Amino acid sequence: MNRYLAELLGTFILLFCGTGAVIIDQQFNGAVTHAGIAITWGFIVMAMIYALGDISGAHMNPAVTIAFTIAGRFQVKQVLPYIISQVTGALLASITLHCLFPGNETLGVTLPAGSEMQSFVLEFLLTFFLMLVVINVATGSKEQGMFAGLAIGSTVLLEAMFAGPVCGASMNPARSMAPAFISGHIEHLWIYIVAPTAGAAFAIPIHKILHNNKQLTKQVQ
Amino acid sequence: MNRYLAELLGTFILLFCGTGAVIIDQQFNGAVTHAGIAITWGFIVMAMIYALGDISGAHMNPAVTIAFTIAGRFQVKQVLPYIISQVTGALLASITLHCLFPGNETLGVTLPAGSEMQSFVLEFLLTFFLMLVVINVATGSKEQGMFAGLAIGSTVLLEAMFAGPVCGASMNPARSMAPAFISGHIEHLWIYIVAPTAGAAFAIPIHKILHNNKQLTKQVQ
Amino acid sequence: MNRYLAELLGTFILLFCGTGAVIIDQQFNGAVTHAGIAITWGFIVMAMIYALGDISGAHMNPAVTIAFTIAGRFQVKQVLPYIISQVTGALLASITLHCLFPGNETLGVTLPAGSEMQSFVLEFLLTFFLMLVVINVATGSKEQGMFAGLAIGSTVLLEAMFAGPVCGASMNPARSMAPAFISGHIEHLWIYIVAPTAGAAFAIPIHKILHNNKQLTKQVQ
Amino acid sequence: MNRYLAELLGTFILLFCGTGAVIIDQQFNGAVTHAGIAITWGFIVMAMIYALGDISGAHMNPAVTIAFTIAGRFQVKQVLPYIISQVTGALLASITLHCLFPGNETLGVTLPAGSEMQSFVLEFLLTFFLMLVVINVATGSKEQGMFAGLAIGSTVLLEAMFAGPVCGASMNPARSMAPAFISGHIEHLWIYIVAPTAGAAFAIPIHKILHNNKQLTKQVQ
Repeated sequence: MNRYLAELLGTFILLFCGTGAVIIDQQFNGAVTHAGIAITWGFIVMAMIYALGDISGAHMNPAVTIAFTIAGRFQVKQVLPYIISQVTGALLASITLHCLFPGNETLGVTLPAGSEMQSFVLEFLLTFFLMLVVINVATGSKEQGMFAGLAIGSTVLLEAMFAGPVCGASMNPARSMAPAFISGHIEHLWIYIVAPTAGAAFAIPIHKILHNNKQLTKQVQ
Repeated sequence: MNRYLAELLGTFILLFCGTGAVIIDQQFNGAVTHAGIAITWGFIVMAMIYALGDISGAHMNPAVTIAFTIAGRFQVKQVLPYIISQVTGALLASITLHCLFPGNETLGVTLPAGSEMQSFVLEFLLTFFLMLVVINVATGSKEQGMFAGLAIGSTVLLEAMFAGPVCGASMNPARSMAPAFISGHIEHLWIYIVAPTAGAAFAIPIHKILHNNKQLTKQVQ
Repeated sequence: MNRYLAELLGTFILLFCGTGAVIIDQQFNGAVTHAGIAITWGFIVMAMIYALGDISGAHMNPAVTIAFTIAGRFQVKQVLPYIISQVTGALLASITLHCLFPGNETLGVTLPAGSEMQSFVLEFLLTFFLMLVVINVATGSKEQGMFAGLAIGSTVLLEAMFAGPVCGASMNPARSMAPAFISGHIEHLWIYIVAPTAGAAFAIPIHKILHNNKQLTKQVQ
Repeated sequence: MNRYLAELLGTFILLFCGTGAVIIDQQFNGAVTHAGIAITWGFIVMAMIYALGDISGAHMNPAVTIAFTIAGRFQVKQVLPYIISQVTGALLASITLHCLFPGNETLGVTLPAGSEMQSFVLEFLLTFFLMLVVINVATGSKEQGMFAGLAIGSTVLLEAMFAGPVCGASMNPARSMAPAFISGHIEHLWIYIVAPTAGAAFAIPIHKILHNNKQLTKQVQ
């Protein structure tokens, strides 16, 4: 139960800060700036990993939970409760922000600036890169584990920084679902559910290839 | 005694840099920028934790001291000396800044941009998030302790970044009291005393629920 | 083989994010900002070092590979496969970005803003500084190794930040070759192949002088 | 000898990047931005500490060297060679930048924006804060030592960020002397020699008070 509460709380805080930054930037004439929004996303992920990582792993992202399950590093029976916790936390954040900033109509929803295909490919690749970092630091050496928060937070920060203007840099179905449902902007939501999940899943076989070969070359040498 | 001096000195430096950034930004036509102010707050908290954390814990914040006491991790008899040290350090910083920049009339005071209720809820939540990070890294594994400065400093940075335009992102009664008293802008000060203290205190039962359940599930498995 | 795949993948991700930031900034009216581009470069280098460093060393840069070989810390027979992997990954990134943003004609190519000599000297010095950090943290104490990602990523970030407006702050022949070949802007490419390679190589004898003397003074004392 | 070379090289790189950022910002219409200049200063200090810290301590600053000597943690006979190495490295950086950017007339010199007294007090306090961080992480626990680069670099970054518009945030006599001598702007140089040295020295008795008391209270309890 505490793991599910940690996921719910972590995703609530993630969405409150991250989409809160987008909303406050809109309501206060760009006061936060695009760079400030990207920094908010990256640093809240880092902070949550150091705060809640030892309880639930601090996934806060259904695509990450599914990818860990595909990798055989997460119990199948916990997938649904994790995703329900994440989406619930995200929805509570969007509802709270809607009450605090009633004049805002989009609530930080992610929308493609160009074509759907462009944003689909970007979200796929962004989440593939992110999950490649996540799976490597989560399953690597003790040092890699210690720096997991810094490495994963920095990846979220930089991807939000450079790709945010094109696709919103969601990389997270729960992050996109909550503002879409509460604001009613569900027209492009499928992109932000399918592409991040596929991208995160794609990181798992690539990670296996990278590490199986390493063991092989060790035996050969 | 050395703990009290560390709290006084730490809070002096925190306020001098943080509210100094706000003042210099106002006096020099926005030269520091909003992002620069947020970075100043976050990084001075991080630096003070690595410099003074082993002496006094580097609370520099009455809400944090009270929350640690509620959690049973701080001696009740030290609460008042800690808070007096923090407020004294903060007041000395505001007085020094007033002497250095006599033309500035607000001294970095925190004021709600919108309604009092909006800022109250935000300050409650911001300090709840912050204290959740503080209590988890302060009481967690050795690795979490090592990264405490980075995690807590980053949380202050990101919260100042995204919520600063709305409520000033104080999260700290001492930080708000000193510029309010020296500049005379005490009209909304109650928000910044009550909301951060309540928000930090609220993190303690949540932290206990998260960790009691963990021990329970460990026994069950 | 897995090392080569890691270099190919790491350099693909490096170029996709880094030159992607330049392209998206151009296509979306400066939305990423110069600071955002520099942060993207620095943080993707840091993330890749923590993710892939234990597989291939995460060079992602022919100049770094050559310098490690001169230092006697990399096998000569692996130099060519490493460079081919890096350039292939970089080319694949530029091709992908060309498909995603067909309207962009320069693809993040590096060009001197002033004279060729000015950019040559800068690229030489920037890569000399970078390689001095790389070789010291790669061959130093365990603590230095743990902070390698942070130290090297920060160096790339700051050098892109301050020198980007003059020379593009490439520091990496593969990073400059790929957008030059795919966009056809190969007029100044020689600078970005020769100067970074010479600068990185120059760091090796300097590093040896710094550390041989240390051993000498230890014996004398 | 290698220590002196490390100080010379470290201070050369520090000045080349830091004052280079100021110069390039001036020559390219504010392309680096004030925040970018502050980030450059902070991150090059961090990178040099992780790269050269184990050779010479990476002081790169006569005020830091003098303060360590007052603290009894640096040999008196090495003070002069250290300072000569630092100033020589700084001068070489200013000369190199003068050759690369002949049109720039100030070379990143530090000048008070307001009164001399205002900048004197600020430089005193900034360097006092910086040295308090330096001496605590340099003489503290193993964990503090590991995070020394991050803590010290962040302090330089935030102090340059918030105080740069007023006094230039030098905190370093060598950093101010070199551009002053090469550009001829020596009119306010005394401030940047006296105030940082006095501020750094003042951190030593404060550090002793903080830590003597700690030992005392340990005995009492």
